[in-house]
Amino acid sequence: MPRAGARSARPGPVGRGSPVRRTSRDIRTANRYQVLRQIIAASPTSRQELAAATGLSLATVATLVGELLDLGMITEVGFEDSAGGRPRGLVAVNAPGGALIGVDLAETYVRVELFDLALNVLARAEEDVRPGESRPEQVVGHVATAVGSVVARAGVEGARVLGAGVSMPGQVDRDTGVCAYAPNWDWHDVPLLDLLAGHIAHPLYLDNPLRACAVAELWFGAARGHGDAVVVNLGTGVGAGLVLGGAVHRGVSDSAGEWGHTTLVLDGRPCHCGDRGCVEAYTGAPGIMLNLRELSPDSPLLRADDQTATIDALARGVRAGDPVAVKVLERTARCLGAGVAGLVNLFNPEVVVLSSWVAAAFGEPLLDGVRAAVARHALRRPLAATRIVLSPIPTDPVCLGAATFALEGALQSAGKGAERRAVGNRR
Amino acid sequence: MPRAGARSARPGPVGRGSPVRRTSRDIRTANRYQVLRQIIAASPTSRQELAAATGLSLATVATLVGELLDLGMITEVGFEDSAGGRPRGLVAVNAPGGALIGVDLAETYVRVELFDLALNVLARAEEDVRPGESRPEQVVGHVATAVGSVVARAGVEGARVLGAGVSMPGQVDRDTGVCAYAPNWDWHDVPLLDLLAGHIAHPLYLDNPLRACAVAELWFGAARGHGDAVVVNLGTGVGAGLVLGGAVHRGVSDSAGEWGHTTLVLDGRPCHCGDRGCVEAYTGAPGIMLNLRELSPDSPLLRADDQTATIDALARGVRAGDPVAVKVLERTARCLGAGVAGLVNLFNPEVVVLSSWVAAAFGEPLLDGVRAAVARHALRRPLAATRIVLSPIPTDPVCLGAATFALEGALQSAGKGAERRAVGNRR
Repeated sequence: MPRAGARSARPGPVGRGSPVRRTSRDIRTANRYQVLRQIIAASPTSRQELAAATGLSLATVATLVGELLDLGMITEVGFEDSAGGRPRGLVAVNAPGGALIGVDLAETYVRVELFDLALNVLARAEEDVRPGESRPEQVVGHVATAVGSVVARAGVEGARVLGAGVSMPGQVDRDTGVCAYAPNWDWHDVPLLDLLAGHIAHPLYLDNPLRACAVAELWFGAARGHGDAVVVNLGTGVGAGLVLGGAVHRGVSDSAGEWGHTTLVLDGRPCHCGDRGCVEAYTGAPGIMLNLRELSPDSPLLRADDQTATIDALARGVRAGDPVAVKVLERTARCLGAGVAGLVNLFNPEVVVLSSWVAAAFGEPLLDGVRAAVARHALRRPLAATRIVLSPIPTDPVCLGAATFALEGALQSAGKGAERRAVGNRR
Repeated sequence: MPRAGARSARPGPVGRGSPVRRTSRDIRTANRYQVLRQIIAASPTSRQELAAATGLSLATVATLVGELLDLGMITEVGFEDSAGGRPRGLVAVNAPGGALIGVDLAETYVRVELFDLALNVLARAEEDVRPGESRPEQVVGHVATAVGSVVARAGVEGARVLGAGVSMPGQVDRDTGVCAYAPNWDWHDVPLLDLLAGHIAHPLYLDNPLRACAVAELWFGAARGHGDAVVVNLGTGVGAGLVLGGAVHRGVSDSAGEWGHTTLVLDGRPCHCGDRGCVEAYTGAPGIMLNLRELSPDSPLLRADDQTATIDALARGVRAGDPVAVKVLERTARCLGAGVAGLVNLFNPEVVVLSSWVAAAFGEPLLDGVRAAVARHALRRPLAATRIVLSPIPTDPVCLGAATFALEGALQSAGKGAERRAVGNRR
């Protein structure tokens, strides 16, 4: 039952093969997101500050604040003087007012984090997925165990869990909850949400890590307060979460953002997608390992097939001034920068965020190299309008983003409830 | 005075360095666009059919139809039987209810077309811009002459002209009306709208040909009724007009869509932008001429520096089965398809439209080649969701799109008038 609620609560299929129907309900939901996002960013705050920060009218902000107070998501926390005028009421996020769960399904592990409404991590659990143990029922079992574990350890009542977001790498359909294809585990058309709903009673939301990282930046990171942003994910795979007009762009069949398979070198290196010369083949973790192997086939930095260990060794080498590591970084940053310049020219965004574990491992040296390469490759006008930054999110952005899908779902359902109540009052 | 009106009538800077403020007025404007678009597409039509086609409620449609009737943009044209129910009122576009002007500033000419409200061309004028005659005052003089000429020839009163849209290749700022940079004529920071307003009394709207072609497809072409579409412009320059969420995406500094400068071949051919290996260097008209020169330096198809003549000769050669022309087309389509596959992967659009004069010259053979290349390069899921088509617009899409900017501006101003009247009535 909660799951069915979650399904119908998900945003409608805007632009899905039909004219766009953006309704006033969509606007109210977007405004509710914006106000809560701002309160989480800067608690305590006043309605006046919220109006100034969001550009919404004071009347609209007052209505939305009232709804969020009714929902127990925020709370009144006193007054501030306003230079001689009436004292202004202050509100803050009500951290214990609800719990959110984020699930990160990765190649070799299932990570689950439980957050309060201020998006602090209250509990974390991780289950290994060993080779040969990646059948859907096995993975679902791991997720159910980990979810039960974080709820128990955080000591929250099940009823206070507003929902669980699940990030699944691959082609997922958030409306049907089906994973059409997952290359990691060779899944085809797995009804993942149906399977999970057999074990987990909270509302469930399925999406992919690209969108999870994008929504995490939009709510809590470098894209907050921006209309147009690109969140470049650098991990084993490479992709770009697109924030356009203040919302995550999904595409007509929910697969937007596959930037890693843009041709960067026509007829270049083979890519695991079957094509050649893709951005990912030069800038994903396996591609970076190949950059190293081409430059120095016997480098002690190469750790057999262990991507994480090799990237960590390279990052340490760069910091220590190892010339091979520095050259690998330069080559990688150059390819990445040429690709990012294309995104800057195409979208003209306010900010490009470098996210995920490879970006975190290399840090500033990668950022500097990418900035320099983008400056060489991008057109002057969009370049001047764009900042390129590392993700400021200190925790796993995928878990955080997945939990945010649950938060958005809860806010959207709440809106429907508020409308029903309003209609009831009128009668 | 009309010009100042037009300026304030332009859409606000959504997402421009600040949180997105999409207001209920924006929604009403978008809905007004959608209803008029549908009426232009399928006159006569009933309010019921409009509601079904747009997804708007019958009450909303009735209000918007009332506004458009008040404005004289549409007209009542009788009734249709509705299978035993009350006869339904039919409306149609009121073609002579206003006139719109579209101005296409190209490298060697200024083309101006005057349209009625059904977007039929009533008059056309063209002035040559000779080398050495491209100073802003000279070009503005040509535009003013051509605009005066089409108004006189169409026999419309000046007061019936709702506005003139101006498409200027290069970096234009539609809010300030300044052309920051135009490579064709080496213009820098030219206050084009201010100059034009000295000669032309109609409301003026400035934008670039990428966006003009995109808005033309959105209103009258292959993107109509779609949320997400990419309009690929193939001319001397190459770009991609992005339709996202049913509206043209402009970017934070009005320069989105510069897809021609995406790297396709790292360290490849020099591009006039200063970079190497850009999509445009292989698929713009000069790039196609270079494809020919590399393959057959003495080909009789090469017409010195005449792009139009060479592309026409190549297109005729392809139709006649000339092996060199066919090979040039294959190479061009292959590069273009690899690039378009990147757009398909990144946006997951419903439709990709090939537009502008190079696409029109080659036609079906180019389309077939691009489709085949995209099928080889794109990921399966977004590929399955996307149609690739030639622009179905039979006239100059740049003039049509420029006139559409004026139509949108008039509809937006009309909305403000309607709101003022409503406020006045309440008092």
